[in-house]
Amino acid sequence: MKHLIDLDDFSIQELDQIVHKAVEIEAHPEAYYGKLSGKILGTLFYEPSTRTQMSFQTAMLKLGGQIIGFDNPQTSSVSKGENLKDTVKVISNYADVIAIRHPSEGAAKAASLVAECPIINAGDGGHLHPTQTLTDLVTLMHEKGHLDHLTIGLCGDLKFGRTVHSLIKAMIHYPGNKFILISTKELTIPDYMKKIILNSNCEYEEISTLEEALPKLDVLYMTRIQRERFESKEEYLKQKDVYRLDTQKMRLAPEDLCILHPLPRVDEIEIAVDDDPRAVYFKQANHGVYARMSLILHILEQNTQTSIKGEIYPEKICSNSRCITQSETYLKRYFYRDKDGVMCCSYCDAHE
Amino acid sequence: MKHLIDLDDFSIQELDQIVHKAVEIEAHPEAYYGKLSGKILGTLFYEPSTRTQMSFQTAMLKLGGQIIGFDNPQTSSVSKGENLKDTVKVISNYADVIAIRHPSEGAAKAASLVAECPIINAGDGGHLHPTQTLTDLVTLMHEKGHLDHLTIGLCGDLKFGRTVHSLIKAMIHYPGNKFILISTKELTIPDYMKKIILNSNCEYEEISTLEEALPKLDVLYMTRIQRERFESKEEYLKQKDVYRLDTQKMRLAPEDLCILHPLPRVDEIEIAVDDDPRAVYFKQANHGVYARMSLILHILEQNTQTSIKGEIYPEKICSNSRCITQSETYLKRYFYRDKDGVMCCSYCDAHE
Amino acid sequence: MKHLIDLDDFSIQELDQIVHKAVEIEAHPEAYYGKLSGKILGTLFYEPSTRTQMSFQTAMLKLGGQIIGFDNPQTSSVSKGENLKDTVKVISNYADVIAIRHPSEGAAKAASLVAECPIINAGDGGHLHPTQTLTDLVTLMHEKGHLDHLTIGLCGDLKFGRTVHSLIKAMIHYPGNKFILISTKELTIPDYMKKIILNSNCEYEEISTLEEALPKLDVLYMTRIQRERFESKEEYLKQKDVYRLDTQKMRLAPEDLCILHPLPRVDEIEIAVDDDPRAVYFKQANHGVYARMSLILHILEQNTQTSIKGEIYPEKICSNSRCITQSETYLKRYFYRDKDGVMCCSYCDAHE
Repeated sequence: MKHLIDLDDFSIQELDQIVHKAVEIEAHPEAYYGKLSGKILGTLFYEPSTRTQMSFQTAMLKLGGQIIGFDNPQTSSVSKGENLKDTVKVISNYADVIAIRHPSEGAAKAASLVAECPIINAGDGGHLHPTQTLTDLVTLMHEKGHLDHLTIGLCGDLKFGRTVHSLIKAMIHYPGNKFILISTKELTIPDYMKKIILNSNCEYEEISTLEEALPKLDVLYMTRIQRERFESKEEYLKQKDVYRLDTQKMRLAPEDLCILHPLPRVDEIEIAVDDDPRAVYFKQANHGVYARMSLILHILEQNTQTSIKGEIYPEKICSNSRCITQSETYLKRYFYRDKDGVMCCSYCDAHE
Repeated sequence: MKHLIDLDDFSIQELDQIVHKAVEIEAHPEAYYGKLSGKILGTLFYEPSTRTQMSFQTAMLKLGGQIIGFDNPQTSSVSKGENLKDTVKVISNYADVIAIRHPSEGAAKAASLVAECPIINAGDGGHLHPTQTLTDLVTLMHEKGHLDHLTIGLCGDLKFGRTVHSLIKAMIHYPGNKFILISTKELTIPDYMKKIILNSNCEYEEISTLEEALPKLDVLYMTRIQRERFESKEEYLKQKDVYRLDTQKMRLAPEDLCILHPLPRVDEIEIAVDDDPRAVYFKQANHGVYARMSLILHILEQNTQTSIKGEIYPEKICSNSRCITQSETYLKRYFYRDKDGVMCCSYCDAHE
Repeated sequence: MKHLIDLDDFSIQELDQIVHKAVEIEAHPEAYYGKLSGKILGTLFYEPSTRTQMSFQTAMLKLGGQIIGFDNPQTSSVSKGENLKDTVKVISNYADVIAIRHPSEGAAKAASLVAECPIINAGDGGHLHPTQTLTDLVTLMHEKGHLDHLTIGLCGDLKFGRTVHSLIKAMIHYPGNKFILISTKELTIPDYMKKIILNSNCEYEEISTLEEALPKLDVLYMTRIQRERFESKEEYLKQKDVYRLDTQKMRLAPEDLCILHPLPRVDEIEIAVDDDPRAVYFKQANHGVYARMSLILHILEQNTQTSIKGEIYPEKICSNSRCITQSETYLKRYFYRDKDGVMCCSYCDAHE
């Protein structure tokens, strides 16, 4: 049984295959309808995310499959104090594949340890959101025709933005990509992400304004500055308008620019920009359905086993207060050493 | 692409065709199962309405189609501040047809301007609810065999009751219909509705008691006096029992009377009346499924374009505080002139 | 039309047939896919119960059918003051079979009196939960191969636990079964349940510790001590850990013991016990899907009528404050006499 917790669970060949298959499905969807007839997708959404949930549901229905699930832990057994393990154990018997979204980091990994069916991580707190990145890759393949030699601007919350980090980690596998990091000083990308780029065959440049960056870009990846990531409302209000894309700034952009956004947008992109053909973020959401169709088909065909990295250290406690091991205390405490020899939690990847 | 925002979007021939098709589907439902195999209905319910939502869902499932959607904006992206446009833009790519319910007047029209698939208005605040009226027409056709030359009593909240207004607007197209308006002075029908009747080939009469009206009727359309339409609880309590239908009053009614009610009922009809064969309101709810099946099939077959009436007046602001343009400020301000030359908002139809 | 309100609605032959069919379906599920193509299950959940609801949904989908329903009365017409009758009347026209869960005792019976399709009781307050018991029987048949001559330990809340009472009532029909009742003095089984056992060909024994009981058992049925059943938090905290099953106690158990639990578990079973092959509670949840598939197929094949016991006593009021007749005041007041001649409410079975 194969799970998708992190995009790293796939080899670069596998990832390529999934991306190309997605493009093919989008070209000939009728050829795939009925492929999963009689199969059930369980969507366990421990926090609301309509778009992601409906994207998964649409993907499954377009393959001829069916759906069960919940989107509100208040109306589920969770409200009776049930732990993650028991819910996953039961529903993974009902369903053939599960997409799980959870506010705790490492929750999808924890689910995969006990599941009787493949688990797809549909977002675990601020940690990972691999199907968004898969969506981004499929969108780039569709719009650009290739994933290498692209100059990609990343704008907004580069400090906490998991979609940004995840996209970088995927794109460094393709030669000649360059990342233009556009953010305020407070929301700059973490050092370990810079190290990851430097260790690859790619490069990066930090630019503090959209105006300066735009002329150089093939792709602009905009992100929402999430209110919940800020310490105070004042801080949020101060930052949110700084990196707003509007029709005036768009005049500086090349004609073949692709603007991506994981959505939901709040006001980091002016609504008038939507009418610009370079705005592909709504198309991107649609590509996400085909990305997930391709992923589900791939996952259900695999016989290989996804295992957990590292070893059990019964005495160690993860230092990340948002880690799933904090609330689900029965979880065995796995830790692994990263390239620099630092101990990391096998669930949430937090460094010691 | 054709939308159904208002019943006026259909010609009277089109409407007739949909009504007759609904009757035919109800007679031979098996002939229509599978007609929409592989198609998806999105139900975007920004306010709760189980019956309407389940009616649409049942209609789609009985055609062999599938369903995605939400019924609780608190668990959707809406809670992250997403605007109507973005939600509709994305989901209309996932779905083949959308039914939208929204508390703001004109919301369905606003949705139709950006949607990539047909939009069906499943209720926009106190403004329109065309599929309820379609259900009423299908019920009358079923029970009476024709839509003309009927004497129709309308009882309850005639001032705010959108289902009453909408039914009148549809029935005036058929010759010889007469409306008996039964309400307290405070909940009497608005003058512009009286004008609409007078401008048609139909007539109306105002009667202040059910007892006096009942002997004259072919059809009695009862409506709920909605608590939320009143300024105070006292005012609501004073009015709600005045026009209650009970078994005693039923003795005054003709044998072939049809009692309709859009449901949910609170206590404007005594429960003992349910056992009277003239009570057809539960059958009516069932006819609503076939009305919606017919509508969905019709909508998906059309290639014509539904457009917005009027022109953009960038400086004008709609005076209706419940209009969708108040919250979704990016909407272009369309206004049109009605027959009397008065400027009206193209979204919510409010007069200046 | 046949309903399942109480397991007593079935003869013992019928029950046997449903149990055996469930085992057969689980062995060859593919032979049953498509059996209910075009049919719709309505799940009316007036209180949250994800597992039960998803179990019903999965059962229907695995038969090729479809699903409508709600799991949150706050987003349904119920919030507009609609009574149970009207909701059931309408949805039972939309659906081919309904599973209803309601906090009031007797609600499913009340629903069955007005429904246009078969009603399955998916739990009515603390009263009945027949599909859980059906699940338990299917699990025992699967794991033990027979339902007779078993020594069954029942541990936890034997006073309020409806699943325990219901299992006993079913198992006394099979010869040679013995019940070992394991509970604190405060949560001991009610006297009328003891009488029911004594009037059958089965016997019981009361034992106050798990340690003493375990060596004697073929089956151990663990139950959650529900916080909501206790008068105070202190009382709950005092009791909940007393009858906790852990790996140490498991050493006293026979090798072929089967541990059942209706789930959700809180902490009455140590998580480490899950790895013991004798722990079959997760399998049990899975058997529940097949039990419900068998039940739905059976119910839809029947032409016999389920009627209400007893007669109408217009002046009598049920003394049970949790009875559905307290809130749904239009219900006709049916009462019947039990074997001892005591008057009982026909909805909630409360004795005078």
